[in-house]
Amino acid sequence: MANATNAETSPDTLAGPVSAEGRALPGHSFVIGPDAPLKLECGVDLAPVTIAYQTYGTLNADRSNAVLVCHALTGDQFCAEPHPVTGKEGWWTSMIGPGKPLDPARHFIICSNVLGGCMGSTGPASIDPSTGKAYGLTLPVITVGDMVRAQARLIDHLGIDTLFCVIGGSMGAMQVLEWASSYSERVFCAIPIAGAARHSAQNIAFHEVGRQAIIADPDWRGGDYASHQVKPVRGLAVARMAAHITYLSEPALHRKFGRNLQDRQAITYGFDADFQVESYLRYQGSSFVDRFDANSYLYLTRAMDYFDLAYEHGGVLGNAFKNTKTRFCIVSFTSDWLFPTAESRAVVHALNAVAANVSFCEIESDKGHDAFLLDEPEMFAVLGGFLKGCAEHRGLATGEPA
Amino acid sequence: MANATNAETSPDTLAGPVSAEGRALPGHSFVIGPDAPLKLECGVDLAPVTIAYQTYGTLNADRSNAVLVCHALTGDQFCAEPHPVTGKEGWWTSMIGPGKPLDPARHFIICSNVLGGCMGSTGPASIDPSTGKAYGLTLPVITVGDMVRAQARLIDHLGIDTLFCVIGGSMGAMQVLEWASSYSERVFCAIPIAGAARHSAQNIAFHEVGRQAIIADPDWRGGDYASHQVKPVRGLAVARMAAHITYLSEPALHRKFGRNLQDRQAITYGFDADFQVESYLRYQGSSFVDRFDANSYLYLTRAMDYFDLAYEHGGVLGNAFKNTKTRFCIVSFTSDWLFPTAESRAVVHALNAVAANVSFCEIESDKGHDAFLLDEPEMFAVLGGFLKGCAEHRGLATGEPA
Repeated sequence: MANATNAETSPDTLAGPVSAEGRALPGHSFVIGPDAPLKLECGVDLAPVTIAYQTYGTLNADRSNAVLVCHALTGDQFCAEPHPVTGKEGWWTSMIGPGKPLDPARHFIICSNVLGGCMGSTGPASIDPSTGKAYGLTLPVITVGDMVRAQARLIDHLGIDTLFCVIGGSMGAMQVLEWASSYSERVFCAIPIAGAARHSAQNIAFHEVGRQAIIADPDWRGGDYASHQVKPVRGLAVARMAAHITYLSEPALHRKFGRNLQDRQAITYGFDADFQVESYLRYQGSSFVDRFDANSYLYLTRAMDYFDLAYEHGGVLGNAFKNTKTRFCIVSFTSDWLFPTAESRAVVHALNAVAANVSFCEIESDKGHDAFLLDEPEMFAVLGGFLKGCAEHRGLATGEPA
Repeated sequence: MANATNAETSPDTLAGPVSAEGRALPGHSFVIGPDAPLKLECGVDLAPVTIAYQTYGTLNADRSNAVLVCHALTGDQFCAEPHPVTGKEGWWTSMIGPGKPLDPARHFIICSNVLGGCMGSTGPASIDPSTGKAYGLTLPVITVGDMVRAQARLIDHLGIDTLFCVIGGSMGAMQVLEWASSYSERVFCAIPIAGAARHSAQNIAFHEVGRQAIIADPDWRGGDYASHQVKPVRGLAVARMAAHITYLSEPALHRKFGRNLQDRQAITYGFDADFQVESYLRYQGSSFVDRFDANSYLYLTRAMDYFDLAYEHGGVLGNAFKNTKTRFCIVSFTSDWLFPTAESRAVVHALNAVAANVSFCEIESDKGHDAFLLDEPEMFAVLGGFLKGCAEHRGLATGEPA
């Protein structure tokens, strides 16, 4: 384990991360070198592997207040600050900030771009040092387990034995469960939100549609678009549009848009975006391609599809958590049809079967899967309470007067 | 009204229908000529308009046993016989046949390809006689109301005043509701299955994804692919894949495929179709493009999006059915999330508000929206009973011993 104390004094801050586009990014990066390559589940030893990450707050003297935030499919390490490409506020500022459940005044918050991503961590858009060209499809297919092993190397590098908390939603929740399974002794508490222990057939199907939309774009060029100075932006936009519908709920779409028309009094009898929902969806597609790499989309959706924690433990999900001492708080949302409550409940049942310490809360919301990213006071109350209790057990400051 | 007695003796059988591909099709076709063009909702008078149709059974002497079957988005007139392109059995052989709810021994069953379709009726792939080229996007955008007005002209032509029954699922159900609203006195009983009186925001969103997938395909050529001897098959396949997921249910996908692998013992760490559900979906996409025209897909999805029966009646759905004497049987399925029961219930409430004669049955099924096409014994029992009662009131044979 490296002897760094915290990110602010770590030597790796000298060479900051660089996006898939070659843009210098805020934050830090850590490199897994060829002397101890990352062992991928597919059998390949991968090196070098860069992990770009961002931190908020300060690691305490006991090194006991670190929180690892795991991002979702299209998220990144900029969870609590403006995004360097889009300028939009961080994707989890609702959860992270002064007085919020995760508070840099008390927690040392770490968020890394996943392996396979496109915001500074090694992914298909990264340059393969052996060829001097972007990996494209020559990058080995990675898994959620691989992402987590890379994160564990980062946590080693930061000199942290045990994380106070690992938290994330959606694909982030998959990483949380993987952490709690593979590194149980290093996770004091785990919060998988709107997640599942395996990707369902319907979810694989939606991902496959997105991948086929990308692959069908002639500008994808067999994955080697970087060599041709083109990008499969049309295919990626269609993939994003299809996925975006699954992140919402029918009631939310109805409430937000209904059949309202976009800047017009009547339908135009044409194929323009007559309806607001069409206009909204087109915008979601076209803005996404500015910040995301199409091949990363293939790799990360594939990692989610492959995730099946029970399968990796003899078909019994409880086996993934045997003898765990981690405290779990599982959260789902009533209107989430992508990762419905039944998936979270299956995790709760498995944890109950091994007598784990587990809380479970299904939150009433009509916002669909995306609720975990939004202003959900009940979620903040539940997680705030859970984290306070865990902090007391861990001997940390709780953020409340003594 | 023309004086034809039934399709078998109608002179129009001499010139049979021709598919968008130029293939001669079984069945009949009827032409709306320039002397009395079809008035479209967009304001255009369209002529000539060809309506390709198929019939099963014989019109009785009273002309009182005619049943109009309305097909769904990707259906056609071959509801009860092998499909002339794919060779697969008719799409509603579960419903139509000896001893079935619709029986050619008792009913004169008519099914026409919708206006805008691609199996012999006028659609964007048809030749515009004024240019000698396929219409492409120069065909005016059509609506469900336009489809139904064209069908009404066909029913005139067949010498039928009042249809015993108008029946259909999904987009077919929209046509049924339009018939019952616009031609109430010509519809003795109406059976909209898995339908809605308006297309929801979520459904518009899914359709928009499909359209954008087609439009993103460079072979679409602004809709003029016919002139370039190409077809946007990749875009159309992606559109079909996305739509196909919405026709099923999560439980059905789980039961049918789960996370089963396709002809392999383990995942391949690649982007081939490792999972059966991926392979199934790819097949759905690739086989669809052999029988369907991409521009027709744009036109028909648009017609569905535009459908909003309440809006057309001052915002009050009941106004669409004022003073109706039609007997209604509304059917929905518990696992249908594309046209959920709430949409059918809204129609029932509107019909109740105008004191219409209405039965409503929500059928327990895990098969999703596609249940209306499948072997659903409860649906057959409900519809068989309803049709028998209506036949008694209409003075028709019921198919049972006296």
